Amino acid sequence: MNALLTDLYELTMAAGYFESGKVSEKAVFEYTIRRLPPHRNFILAAGLPQVVDYLLNLSFAAEEIDYLRGLAQFRHVSPAFFDYLRDFRFTGDLFAVPEGVPMFPSEPVLTIRAPIIEAQIPETYVLSAVAFQSLVATKAARSVEVAGGRAVVEFGTRRAHTPEAGVVGARAAYIGGCAGTSNTLAGFRFGIPVMGTAAHSWVMSFPGEMEAFRQLQRVLGDSTVQLIDTYDTLEGARRAAQLGRPLWGVRIDSGDFLALSHQVRAILDQAGLPEARIMASGDLDEYRIRELVNAGAPIDAFGVGTQLATSADAPALSAVYKMVELEFRGIQRFTAKYSADKISLPGSKQIFREPARDVVARSGECGKGEALLRPVILGGRLVEPLPTVEPARRRAAEWLAKLPAALRQLEVGEPWPVVYSRELRALIDRTRLNVAG
Amino acid sequence: MNALLTDLYELTMAAGYFESGKVSEKAVFEYTIRRLPPHRNFILAAGLPQVVDYLLNLSFAAEEIDYLRGLAQFRHVSPAFFDYLRDFRFTGDLFAVPEGVPMFPSEPVLTIRAPIIEAQIPETYVLSAVAFQSLVATKAARSVEVAGGRAVVEFGTRRAHTPEAGVVGARAAYIGGCAGTSNTLAGFRFGIPVMGTAAHSWVMSFPGEMEAFRQLQRVLGDSTVQLIDTYDTLEGARRAAQLGRPLWGVRIDSGDFLALSHQVRAILDQAGLPEARIMASGDLDEYRIRELVNAGAPIDAFGVGTQLATSADAPALSAVYKMVELEFRGIQRFTAKYSADKISLPGSKQIFREPARDVVARSGECGKGEALLRPVILGGRLVEPLPTVEPARRRAAEWLAKLPAALRQLEVGEPWPVVYSRELRALIDRTRLNVAG
Repeated sequence: MNALLTDLYELTMAAGYFESGKVSEKAVFEYTIRRLPPHRNFILAAGLPQVVDYLLNLSFAAEEIDYLRGLAQFRHVSPAFFDYLRDFRFTGDLFAVPEGVPMFPSEPVLTIRAPIIEAQIPETYVLSAVAFQSLVATKAARSVEVAGGRAVVEFGTRRAHTPEAGVVGARAAYIGGCAGTSNTLAGFRFGIPVMGTAAHSWVMSFPGEMEAFRQLQRVLGDSTVQLIDTYDTLEGARRAAQLGRPLWGVRIDSGDFLALSHQVRAILDQAGLPEARIMASGDLDEYRIRELVNAGAPIDAFGVGTQLATSADAPALSAVYKMVELEFRGIQRFTAKYSADKISLPGSKQIFREPARDVVARSGECGKGEALLRPVILGGRLVEPLPTVEPARRRAAEWLAKLPAALRQLEVGEPWPVVYSRELRALIDRTRLNVAG
Repeated sequence: MNALLTDLYELTMAAGYFESGKVSEKAVFEYTIRRLPPHRNFILAAGLPQVVDYLLNLSFAAEEIDYLRGLAQFRHVSPAFFDYLRDFRFTGDLFAVPEGVPMFPSEPVLTIRAPIIEAQIPETYVLSAVAFQSLVATKAARSVEVAGGRAVVEFGTRRAHTPEAGVVGARAAYIGGCAGTSNTLAGFRFGIPVMGTAAHSWVMSFPGEMEAFRQLQRVLGDSTVQLIDTYDTLEGARRAAQLGRPLWGVRIDSGDFLALSHQVRAILDQAGLPEARIMASGDLDEYRIRELVNAGAPIDAFGVGTQLATSADAPALSAVYKMVELEFRGIQRFTAKYSADKISLPGSKQIFREPARDVVARSGECGKGEALLRPVILGGRLVEPLPTVEPARRRAAEWLAKLPAALRQLEVGEPWPVVYSRELRALIDRTRLNVAG
């Protein structure tokens, strides 16, 4: 039912593989980060459950097959191919790096080993699902790092590229270390803490700000966050302070956060509300957060929206899904691509993370350090239920803490060393010689 | 079933409105473009059908209500509110500018008039659904404009922010003038022309390039597009030329497009294949297309992916969904926001497009020119079936052709004049005086 959610060429190739007698040929494809985006020292792996859901449900509905049959591109394709599509399922294997692991260029994040058509069709979906969530998780991790213990909350669904992207974006941001999200469905679906109390429209819907604050407090009790900048931020702070407890805190959504947070803090403290928190939101990203934290702004929580939910300074990831290996009637063949600056490395791989470097090896090699690629689906079946977001979030925090400090900063540091094993290097050389024109 | 796909504060406000006796108060909210993104002279309206689907299906499932009941924020909320949610539906009105119309700052693209809770909850969804598609449609229009009649095909699902975003992104790109998309589901669902034939993995799956080309031709006939840059582009071109017809053309996915396209053209022409087309893809955007077209590159079609599907140079739109009007027991009240550089204008509005300017007026005013906001949903019911993408695409082309040439260029030109009617200006002044602190 989801197999049309792919580029048409995956399906014309499927027809071609079928017609060329390759239907039982096995292929290995790897999803690999080619280059880090600007200003990034790592990419946190995220999005695996969406890939798993996709693969386990991969199929064509009858009317979808009819649609293909009617396309010009399929005019010369034999009826047997459309029969094949009717029963099409993913029967292969998926190996993947667990969510939350920081990854580096030329490392495979996941490997699909399956009959060639089953391995080809997922390309488009896999690229999109993994890259977006990985970008958001990475940007969240950067923001959380510079917030120095202050909460960073994901507020970006309204700017995400579709509301549905907001849901998985919220999930990714949580894996990256955000304290929670404003996206209610992400809370319902993934168990992520949800946050949010009132917008300007709430304040505007009452004839006076004081009345709006009083009604909110009555409904929300100690969850109350008064939004104080609808008319005049300091006047709003005085009104919130005057109302007093119960109160979680106040939110400032515009203006000079540094000056305002000091002034608002003083107002709250003078009113005997030292525990009342100050949240800032509006046009924030990791650079702005760092600036405010370094300047000593008394802000307890940051709401980050647009920049995070769209990974605005790095909205796309240079990643590829490339065929690295073929097996047909017991004969293995390694494949690679050597065209102008778009190179892919042959052979199925494993990554060993050592304390100060990663070694990319051929799969099956023994290595020191932790092997990052693990079986997730074997023979079309899930090996074990996927972990929830909590372990992924913990894993991200643990792995990031182990990275050199320079790689956790916002600026680009000395790259994490990624080397190829001797066996892999030998295979690369051998394959380059063999690549036929 | 979709009502949790919103920011939590929409739902806490809903509870607050309910508890404050505002449940039958009517509100008008407007979705307005606040500022144009950098390098944009207009924004093409797109995404309306997704908003309509959302509103017509707005409801809470029982387990979703239970989830809300369990949240700390709803601890003090009365059981009557959760009963209210059980039967919650959208019963209000939606007015919208048709898809494909170029829009300018401070113009409402859509208006929702409904009981306040029904008008508040859609904020998050509306912002996200409209902005993303509008950004992609706009970037597509820019690319098509500079392509000067050459086809621009949307290839970006793999880089979209989730595969699902790729589907509606493809739709938006088609409205903006793209000739088609690689996204098969967008073809199936919206009737958009789909394109695509083979990737590098196809070529690599055969021991030799010639064999790969021959097999593709056998399966695809005159839809065949040979991808010629897997090993060596010119060698690939020679092989494709040697095979000859049937052949739609060749695709170059890397390297120096200007030089290669001339060389490949010569190879095809010498082989007596003057009708075989050259398509270029890989890291293209409107600037690169203009450069290639101006340099006289013999490229017949451009495949545009990453930059288009993520609107990479403008990944977010500064748009707001603001309450402009309230009506309770026959008393109308206008609302606006005057906080630091985040201003919203009071009162429900209409836009009149005149030959050389737009006039934003109060709704109900008479104006010259075409009234852009039209009723789409009235009393919770669709007024008439929504048009398909074809009329929206035609409308975009027609409206864009009417804009001054400077606004169709890539650089920022003299802004299209947008003025406020006298009545609207009077209302703005009156409301500013009345805004209570």
